Amino acid sequence: MRTSQYLLSTMKETPADAEVISHKLMLRAGMIRRLASGMYTYLPSGVRVLRKVEQIVREEMNKAGAIEVLMPLVQPAELWQESGRWEKMDAELLRFVDRHQRDFVLGPTHEEVITDLVRREITSYKQLPLNLYQIQTKFRDERRPRFGVMRAREFLMKDAYSFHLSQESLQQTYDAMYSAYCNIFNRLGLDYRPVLADTGAIGGSVSHEFHVLAASGEDAIAFSDTSDYAANIEMAEAKAPAGPRPAPTQQLTQVATPGAKTVAEVAALLQQPASQISKTLIVYAAKASDDAPQTLVALVLRGDHELNEIKAEKLPQVASPLVFASEEEIRAVMGAGPGSLGPVKCPLPLIVDRSAAHLADFSCGANQDGFHLTGVNWDRDVTDYQVADLRNVVEGDASPCGFGKLVIKRGIEVGHIFQLGDKYSQAMKAGVLNEEGKHQIMTMGCYGVGVSRIVAAAIEQNHDERGIIWPDAIAPFQVVLIPMNMHKSVRIAEATELLYQQLTAAGIEVLFDDRKERPGVMFADMELVGIPHHIVIGERNLDNRQVEYKNRRSGATELLAIDEVLAFVNQQLKR
Amino acid sequence: MRTSQYLLSTMKETPADAEVISHKLMLRAGMIRRLASGMYTYLPSGVRVLRKVEQIVREEMNKAGAIEVLMPLVQPAELWQESGRWEKMDAELLRFVDRHQRDFVLGPTHEEVITDLVRREITSYKQLPLNLYQIQTKFRDERRPRFGVMRAREFLMKDAYSFHLSQESLQQTYDAMYSAYCNIFNRLGLDYRPVLADTGAIGGSVSHEFHVLAASGEDAIAFSDTSDYAANIEMAEAKAPAGPRPAPTQQLTQVATPGAKTVAEVAALLQQPASQISKTLIVYAAKASDDAPQTLVALVLRGDHELNEIKAEKLPQVASPLVFASEEEIRAVMGAGPGSLGPVKCPLPLIVDRSAAHLADFSCGANQDGFHLTGVNWDRDVTDYQVADLRNVVEGDASPCGFGKLVIKRGIEVGHIFQLGDKYSQAMKAGVLNEEGKHQIMTMGCYGVGVSRIVAAAIEQNHDERGIIWPDAIAPFQVVLIPMNMHKSVRIAEATELLYQQLTAAGIEVLFDDRKERPGVMFADMELVGIPHHIVIGERNLDNRQVEYKNRRSGATELLAIDEVLAFVNQQLKR
Repeated sequence: MRTSQYLLSTMKETPADAEVISHKLMLRAGMIRRLASGMYTYLPSGVRVLRKVEQIVREEMNKAGAIEVLMPLVQPAELWQESGRWEKMDAELLRFVDRHQRDFVLGPTHEEVITDLVRREITSYKQLPLNLYQIQTKFRDERRPRFGVMRAREFLMKDAYSFHLSQESLQQTYDAMYSAYCNIFNRLGLDYRPVLADTGAIGGSVSHEFHVLAASGEDAIAFSDTSDYAANIEMAEAKAPAGPRPAPTQQLTQVATPGAKTVAEVAALLQQPASQISKTLIVYAAKASDDAPQTLVALVLRGDHELNEIKAEKLPQVASPLVFASEEEIRAVMGAGPGSLGPVKCPLPLIVDRSAAHLADFSCGANQDGFHLTGVNWDRDVTDYQVADLRNVVEGDASPCGFGKLVIKRGIEVGHIFQLGDKYSQAMKAGVLNEEGKHQIMTMGCYGVGVSRIVAAAIEQNHDERGIIWPDAIAPFQVVLIPMNMHKSVRIAEATELLYQQLTAAGIEVLFDDRKERPGVMFADMELVGIPHHIVIGERNLDNRQVEYKNRRSGATELLAIDEVLAFVNQQLKR
Repeated sequence: MRTSQYLLSTMKETPADAEVISHKLMLRAGMIRRLASGMYTYLPSGVRVLRKVEQIVREEMNKAGAIEVLMPLVQPAELWQESGRWEKMDAELLRFVDRHQRDFVLGPTHEEVITDLVRREITSYKQLPLNLYQIQTKFRDERRPRFGVMRAREFLMKDAYSFHLSQESLQQTYDAMYSAYCNIFNRLGLDYRPVLADTGAIGGSVSHEFHVLAASGEDAIAFSDTSDYAANIEMAEAKAPAGPRPAPTQQLTQVATPGAKTVAEVAALLQQPASQISKTLIVYAAKASDDAPQTLVALVLRGDHELNEIKAEKLPQVASPLVFASEEEIRAVMGAGPGSLGPVKCPLPLIVDRSAAHLADFSCGANQDGFHLTGVNWDRDVTDYQVADLRNVVEGDASPCGFGKLVIKRGIEVGHIFQLGDKYSQAMKAGVLNEEGKHQIMTMGCYGVGVSRIVAAAIEQNHDERGIIWPDAIAPFQVVLIPMNMHKSVRIAEATELLYQQLTAAGIEVLFDDRKERPGVMFADMELVGIPHHIVIGERNLDNRQVEYKNRRSGATELLAIDEVLAFVNQQLKR
């Protein structure tokens, strides 16, 4: 491709409305343009990257035995009513009527459509297992779309759905998808981690997320520093501290702490570390029945730890979703405000985090405004309590796998695999005749990859102050030829043309920057666009039949004999 | 691919709701399933064909210098309001609001979005010409979707838009697209014709449609039997009959024709051919201004010819769109009803079709109920009239190109190229600085291919009573291996497996029918699915180290040495 016949569309200015680096660079490098909030047109360089990601995903899905289908984006409401999600989903599910006033949605996902298809097509256990996927446009009417294509409303996704008659069969396909995803991200050339994940609203039991690691990632991931263990921080188990709890050495003492309400204020006043102070959070209890009165539960954590809301709401005693009690509700029961609460003589059921339960001689609120207690000890001062894992892990915690300590990094979720179970197949009565000739509901898995999101995540992970640094596999072009002042030198024009013909004929994707631009502009543009391999053709080097090679990532340059360029590039591209 | 690991989904029964053969066969061959009216899920065989068509289109567009982009399906209303189509388009344009009550549409086409993009990105004549395309989902809320994917609501289209500063540049890109389309349909292996077309509602001047020829086609196309001339019947010019008009030989005579109102009735009564009788149609005249009173115009054609409404409404004297006067309106002016009208002493302006104007001694209504005139002659009996091309051509007409006679065939429109002019660029103020440094509105072309429609059209053209007959280039699989009773014969299983490995390794797309089915079921399924090359592996032939080859299209069979299968298949596929 010659730049003069291409739509490069690079921008010097950093767009004001872009918050994250990938969004800025995708705009500046001429990959996308905003059409409306959360909707983007992909310019030529954007499409080239997107199609490469799409093709790698397709090839690996095919290799793993999944079969490609293509479902409509527009879906009839009836199926969503049948699954129950028509009621459950909020405005993220975009609903509209057609010219005949029939209800439809723009599909944010396709569980309903595929389950409907499979229940019609598949009648016998002999046709199972089956794993169907598509690479297709999705629409989610996000309340606040942001970060460019990272959290867009219209986006491209690979979604796969598998159908089984046994957990064993589901596990096999799940494992095959896990491997396929590893292959995908390896081929994309990205640093990623599969992590144990919460299954969330989509339902099901086992689930892994695939994260591209990047400092700007929205999610925190906990890794073992010595094993393969990795989990979303929402899921990572916080173990109890090693060894027995120390024996009490201090007397229970009430101290006045006027004005000290936060852990930091109390710690400063008492001259104790936050880790030696407990904090007490009051939340709604789970109800035995819908018409039972709402009661409360007290959660106790160490002052330096954070409540993990997902862990809390999974406890049978706690309402799900989690609701914090208001100050009024707290005062009515506890006789004190949120800054002065504690487990001693607490009238509510107590659930104590494992680490808090390991403290001795600790401090806490006295359940009396303006007072705290010091020298508190479990079992001596508080007898009726339960212990549970309530907190987010922190760096340095023992890994729950039993090996090493946890390190915390940030990641961008680009893939997610689920064992769905029978959530949809049960609701939609999707069954087949099993080996015994009996009707049996199928069990399902689902497997998503955010194709357009990968493009943004790859940039978050691979960039510098000059622009994008594409991995070879998904670069819009693999090589750029940058001739110096070609329009004044026939010799340079000819040498560049020859290289262009030679590399292109070898199947390499080459951008030939034939614009009448100053060298500085061309270098800056090509570094911004992120083409991994640069060949600079200049007068002086041509005297020695040489050109300069520059590696976008390392910045290293070297002189190449002009006859060796093809072989060198092939070697760089590992072809 | 092994059938046991594939979703073949063939059906024996012909679905009741499918009207055309391609729809029936796509359902029966397991290519599509209906999700809702005009919306289809593509099953694996459907996706395989669709992706092949898509890829051929993409490759030829790239070769022709077009650059791929990808625009959202969901589009903001503002752009449609700016172009004026928000008001002009009917319910086919599906409108809805998002969660913030902003107006959007599901894009039936992308002129507005691309024009908006280009006016922002392109500022100088140096960046032109530019031809951008996408292959993307479209949505048109058809009043009556039908014929499966032939006229669906959600469908896949390639749409390209080019931008220029001169008609010459537009013509160059238009010609390049014309050639690219010929290459596409040649590669697809389809019998097609580019035909001159009306530009219709989309606007512009020059336009060609690309039609796949099929007896079931919705459109009639007129061809010269000796030259390359081809035009949509709406567009084909009807020349005046050769030679001078015969001289009058009869007197003008009024005859009673009680009850005879249609041409056929009058012809029978007068014992004259319909070609010797004229018919007079009364339509609304064009108004000089909106508040002028509505006047009428009389159109005169030969009794055996059909009015071409598009030709009529293009005349400056005639209202566009064409409106036929009511019987009441006709009687008020003519003093007679529709069955008894004629040009003699007609109080309305007369426009006479070229062929009707060539008649001598013809008959027509007397403008008096129950009477006709015979022996009518132009200039003698009617002096004030205009001559124009008003009729549809018929088979046997002289070709307007001057060579040969017209033949009429039926076609399915699968591509359409337009010279749009400045319809959108003017409305949306899309201009650039020209060579003189002045702001100049761009001129545009647009170029569409119905990707999913091609799949249906290919079937309309290529099928027999047993099923689909795919051209090699777009077959879901190129070769099928059909082993006879493989599950009882290790020898057959092994021989088939070996062939499967060998052909697959050579890059041929092979379906290995490894189901436990009777040979008859396998043959019927594979003929229905339309795989072009069948290899049958049976005991008796294996004794001679042979297999049977069957060509799906010709039905011809021959025995092949098992070692020669690969070479033979390569030859068949012209690889």
